[in-house]
Amino acid sequence: MNSYGNLFRISTFGESHGPAIGVIIDGCPAGLAIDEHFIQSELDRRKPGQSKITTQRKEDDTFKILSGVFEGKSTGTPIAIVIENQDQRSKDYSHIQNTFRPSHADYTYEAKYGNRDYRGGGRSSARETAARVAAGAIAKLLLKQFGVDISAFVSQVGEIKAGHYTQLDLTKTEDNIVRCPDPATAEKMIALIDEVRLSRDTIGGVVTCVIKNTPVGLGEPVFDKLHAELGKAMLSINAVKGFEYGSGFEGIKLRGSQHNDEFYNEGGKIRTKTNHSGGVQGGISNGENIYFNVAFKPVATIMQDQQSVDKDGNEATVSGKGRHDPCVVPRAVPIVEAMAALVLADFLLRAKANKV
Amino acid sequence: MNSYGNLFRISTFGESHGPAIGVIIDGCPAGLAIDEHFIQSELDRRKPGQSKITTQRKEDDTFKILSGVFEGKSTGTPIAIVIENQDQRSKDYSHIQNTFRPSHADYTYEAKYGNRDYRGGGRSSARETAARVAAGAIAKLLLKQFGVDISAFVSQVGEIKAGHYTQLDLTKTEDNIVRCPDPATAEKMIALIDEVRLSRDTIGGVVTCVIKNTPVGLGEPVFDKLHAELGKAMLSINAVKGFEYGSGFEGIKLRGSQHNDEFYNEGGKIRTKTNHSGGVQGGISNGENIYFNVAFKPVATIMQDQQSVDKDGNEATVSGKGRHDPCVVPRAVPIVEAMAALVLADFLLRAKANKV
Amino acid sequence: MNSYGNLFRISTFGESHGPAIGVIIDGCPAGLAIDEHFIQSELDRRKPGQSKITTQRKEDDTFKILSGVFEGKSTGTPIAIVIENQDQRSKDYSHIQNTFRPSHADYTYEAKYGNRDYRGGGRSSARETAARVAAGAIAKLLLKQFGVDISAFVSQVGEIKAGHYTQLDLTKTEDNIVRCPDPATAEKMIALIDEVRLSRDTIGGVVTCVIKNTPVGLGEPVFDKLHAELGKAMLSINAVKGFEYGSGFEGIKLRGSQHNDEFYNEGGKIRTKTNHSGGVQGGISNGENIYFNVAFKPVATIMQDQQSVDKDGNEATVSGKGRHDPCVVPRAVPIVEAMAALVLADFLLRAKANKV
Amino acid sequence: MNSYGNLFRISTFGESHGPAIGVIIDGCPAGLAIDEHFIQSELDRRKPGQSKITTQRKEDDTFKILSGVFEGKSTGTPIAIVIENQDQRSKDYSHIQNTFRPSHADYTYEAKYGNRDYRGGGRSSARETAARVAAGAIAKLLLKQFGVDISAFVSQVGEIKAGHYTQLDLTKTEDNIVRCPDPATAEKMIALIDEVRLSRDTIGGVVTCVIKNTPVGLGEPVFDKLHAELGKAMLSINAVKGFEYGSGFEGIKLRGSQHNDEFYNEGGKIRTKTNHSGGVQGGISNGENIYFNVAFKPVATIMQDQQSVDKDGNEATVSGKGRHDPCVVPRAVPIVEAMAALVLADFLLRAKANKV
Repeated sequence: MNSYGNLFRISTFGESHGPAIGVIIDGCPAGLAIDEHFIQSELDRRKPGQSKITTQRKEDDTFKILSGVFEGKSTGTPIAIVIENQDQRSKDYSHIQNTFRPSHADYTYEAKYGNRDYRGGGRSSARETAARVAAGAIAKLLLKQFGVDISAFVSQVGEIKAGHYTQLDLTKTEDNIVRCPDPATAEKMIALIDEVRLSRDTIGGVVTCVIKNTPVGLGEPVFDKLHAELGKAMLSINAVKGFEYGSGFEGIKLRGSQHNDEFYNEGGKIRTKTNHSGGVQGGISNGENIYFNVAFKPVATIMQDQQSVDKDGNEATVSGKGRHDPCVVPRAVPIVEAMAALVLADFLLRAKANKV
Repeated sequence: MNSYGNLFRISTFGESHGPAIGVIIDGCPAGLAIDEHFIQSELDRRKPGQSKITTQRKEDDTFKILSGVFEGKSTGTPIAIVIENQDQRSKDYSHIQNTFRPSHADYTYEAKYGNRDYRGGGRSSARETAARVAAGAIAKLLLKQFGVDISAFVSQVGEIKAGHYTQLDLTKTEDNIVRCPDPATAEKMIALIDEVRLSRDTIGGVVTCVIKNTPVGLGEPVFDKLHAELGKAMLSINAVKGFEYGSGFEGIKLRGSQHNDEFYNEGGKIRTKTNHSGGVQGGISNGENIYFNVAFKPVATIMQDQQSVDKDGNEATVSGKGRHDPCVVPRAVPIVEAMAALVLADFLLRAKANKV
Repeated sequence: MNSYGNLFRISTFGESHGPAIGVIIDGCPAGLAIDEHFIQSELDRRKPGQSKITTQRKEDDTFKILSGVFEGKSTGTPIAIVIENQDQRSKDYSHIQNTFRPSHADYTYEAKYGNRDYRGGGRSSARETAARVAAGAIAKLLLKQFGVDISAFVSQVGEIKAGHYTQLDLTKTEDNIVRCPDPATAEKMIALIDEVRLSRDTIGGVVTCVIKNTPVGLGEPVFDKLHAELGKAMLSINAVKGFEYGSGFEGIKLRGSQHNDEFYNEGGKIRTKTNHSGGVQGGISNGENIYFNVAFKPVATIMQDQQSVDKDGNEATVSGKGRHDPCVVPRAVPIVEAMAALVLADFLLRAKANKV
Repeated sequence: MNSYGNLFRISTFGESHGPAIGVIIDGCPAGLAIDEHFIQSELDRRKPGQSKITTQRKEDDTFKILSGVFEGKSTGTPIAIVIENQDQRSKDYSHIQNTFRPSHADYTYEAKYGNRDYRGGGRSSARETAARVAAGAIAKLLLKQFGVDISAFVSQVGEIKAGHYTQLDLTKTEDNIVRCPDPATAEKMIALIDEVRLSRDTIGGVVTCVIKNTPVGLGEPVFDKLHAELGKAMLSINAVKGFEYGSGFEGIKLRGSQHNDEFYNEGGKIRTKTNHSGGVQGGISNGENIYFNVAFKPVATIMQDQQSVDKDGNEATVSGKGRHDPCVVPRAVPIVEAMAALVLADFLLRAKANKV
């Protein structure tokens, strides 16, 4: 359904052109200081209109907490957050009331539900991810208490790739509008996105996420492996087509003798010499850095005419309208971080019941 | 925990060297004919010792149904299946009682639980997947009633790749021991695995899965997207490092205008001209073929000495022992199919409640 | 947590003196006409200040739908409903900031969470049930499509009892302020409540609920029996101390030969001659009327001084303040109906997956 | 479905005349010493044939642990327990293959599933509760680590009642075959059951359960209140018709000023002077004794002819056959305790995530 997580559990609601979107966070432990400025700063990283390479739609994405926080701290009861929708140009969407946009969810929602809020994609709009970012911000606040640090960045746009995360200074991610910590590569990415935008087209990319200082022992066998939940969480983000962690798809070419991560003792702490495992072994965190890649397809909305059909099966042309992103990855960075935080916060709480 | 699925839900149990492993299937609709020969044939595709390129361990993997089936049909009550463990050479594992095998789950289980059944990896052993295959066989029987067809095959071993599934005759998958439907490529794969085996090493690969005739409308927004659950299901299989569907990681290089799948009307049925979407749009099946790739790392157990540490943090050498697979993908094919079947069966039942 | 139901699932949030309370309904099938007047009329039955025997607190309990409804019908996506809090006299509660009211949740919340919104009981306030009533109204709209009819009424206040439901005309329940369909008994009940109110005290009562036209086959073995879920749902309402269905506690005195409900064929429909089973056999509805009793204790807030302790364990006196109900059952009637509707709507959807 | 609990979760399977019944316990923390003698002793308290007032059916109910325990301790992985069925006289049931026994689940299962294992009631048989008792024994072992003590006893048979639990010595419960700790009342109960048995009839009763030393803070607002889950757990036991805790149905007659439990400080521990709350306030344990009553109807199987209908709606006579209990409460005592233990174990684990 529209919930995610077991003990730290979120339920989101809202359509892109309804009165509001929002989220209930159930299971946030009591006593956590809720820093509203931090939540807003996370929403600001995701919000539209933040630079020339994102959609020019303007939404402030200011939020209101309706429950679960008292005198600045969580009370253990559900935290409800609402973000009102603004600047909705619903008229931009009347053309798709009866016609299915290619590679959007219009057709599948119509087939599944019969009754569909077509304005702006309704529930299938990436606007829903603002609710995730707000909830993820609270998960991050919880994780900070345990020293866990989550940093995502853009590692690829089209064919332009940044180097391996271990060669990058992740503190520089926010220094440029594409959110790639390698300045030279960032410039090329920005130029490519701009070129794609001018040609009224879109392009895909990769967000890489690195999680440091995860406690050993998070993740549950056998279905709820840490990386399996991370994978589901990432694949649930709009436009995601793939997920790999640690050595990923490249690792299949290695021999076991090259791929295995040998253990050693570093001053009393058990560590691995290499980290092809990506910080997860047998589905459970081993204390090394967790890292993974998330592939985003080119945005489906393009400013070009496309062939399609309408509800009655007649041929129809879909013309690009509205204000959209030429490339989704710069704004996806905080979403990836938010989903990662939600997964880890949940496993952190679940791990409390592992031993007598 | 150790359960998967919502309405068609399985719970597995068992360690590789305990008395038995098994599974409870809860939520299988009543009235389904349970073909025990089919279940056995699926288990046989996964079982060890089936060819020269798999482990030489011998296990019959015969199963017994303890409940939920009456006069050959499901009754709607839980179907419990038990597979007794045989040919356990627990002594093979005494050397890892106190030492952590590199890139196995030994260390993380020890850290998480304190109390660990070290014999053969215990619960973290891929032996657990036999229970999934048995349950998946029942899911397949249910799906057959709706015409759904699931076919997986080996599409890559090391650097050797087969072509795109649309160029292959998937009925030929079982014709060779590596389970690649392209005979020429299969030969090369077999040769490579044999070479790797002789060098006492292991290698990774990719299993591709194709699902035909899926009804339109399966999958749930927003977290339980069809491909997100498929991703989680696949990533929960031992040794999996990555998942991509449709255009996957390659798709990010395309422009939106190239990537979008235009709709057309084929004799009253709404279809797409291309299928970069991989049969899923907005997380919901659109009736086109669903296809995805699953990356498996090289098996961690190698017949070589490796450096590691023991429980007390002392340096230790792990020597390869036991009988293991040089490459896991040939035996992973039925596991991938089983997990895909479990995901689809669950969504099929969930979709029954979509509309008034 | 703060969610209830499996396929028709609600999640409530909100404290009595925060900005708002509300509910997300996830899993409501698409295409259901959402009658907002009906929702409001249900809320009005529960709202405070409706008669001289209820609290004189004034709250309009007007609601706003934020999502999930488009052009008057459900879309299959989450329906979020918010009810703003009004007329909050938070100052009435400063006296209990540090002192535990007897038989309230003050002490247990403090012990469990440490951080507690003490104003008006916060999350433990019965104000939360307004969210349930709003959600229950939507469940009722769904059930109406299947002909299911749910009617609750006050059957006991203190020692004053109405007759068995089969002797009453349940269409008369709303004819008086105590919601007892037997006018003579209703008068006595009202007089008793008024007397209790004047003595600055409170009193308990029983709400009986009757469900007609339930389809045969709702309820799931073995833990989610229909009456077990009804029991949990009722016991989750504030101040409830007991639940019995069918013959209930009295039935234990009967012999099996008296208690068993013999079957007969009524014009092709299988029915029972008696209905000690209360419409449920083996946890599954049999098509006969479902009926059950719910016991409510006397309201804990009384307008008298009581001995207690404060957070530091010092003796303290709690003086009755605020505006409270002398007897909760008249306003509990719509709450009982709402919870019953939520249980039935959920089982109705779950039953769709019972057979191939 | 057939699972119960959230973090300490059981899934049961099996029909009364299939090869076996059993249970998977998922979420038992690692490191718990599993005392198999204790598990057997609990099963022995429930097993048939233990005295003249129970069924004379003979089943040893010996169990086998298939997984999750290593060297005498839980490993944190699923504990699977199987109990083989013995002494099945399936022929005793051929008469009900097509005819519905009054007040049994025959008709409702047939209507719900179409395909029904009619032998001995199949899944609806109380035999399923043996699996609960085995799992409950493990929950008890966990609870003992926290000092929690659970004692149930028979407090009523027909109209014969024992006194309030506070007047009884609960260590004497096992001293007689009816399991009533008041010897004089026990004798009367035994005489009544024997009389009922000789008249080929059955009778109902009440089991009272007392839980001492529960930690403060167990139970979750708002739906998963401690007493609501206890209620559901009890109502899920075969033949249960009612549940009340603390003052229960009698409490409704009291005034709030009589019913409220005033707090006091007992040597630094916050306690209540009275305990009408039954150890639970606002759905959360307050450290006082938890106590509740569970009403069981007269067993539906009687050794007399009864009118009924068959599958085709024709009139039919059901004659009592087989070996059955004249009164279920003596054997229900360990079942009530087991379900209570499962609820508390689950809440104990859930409470670990309440605070930062």
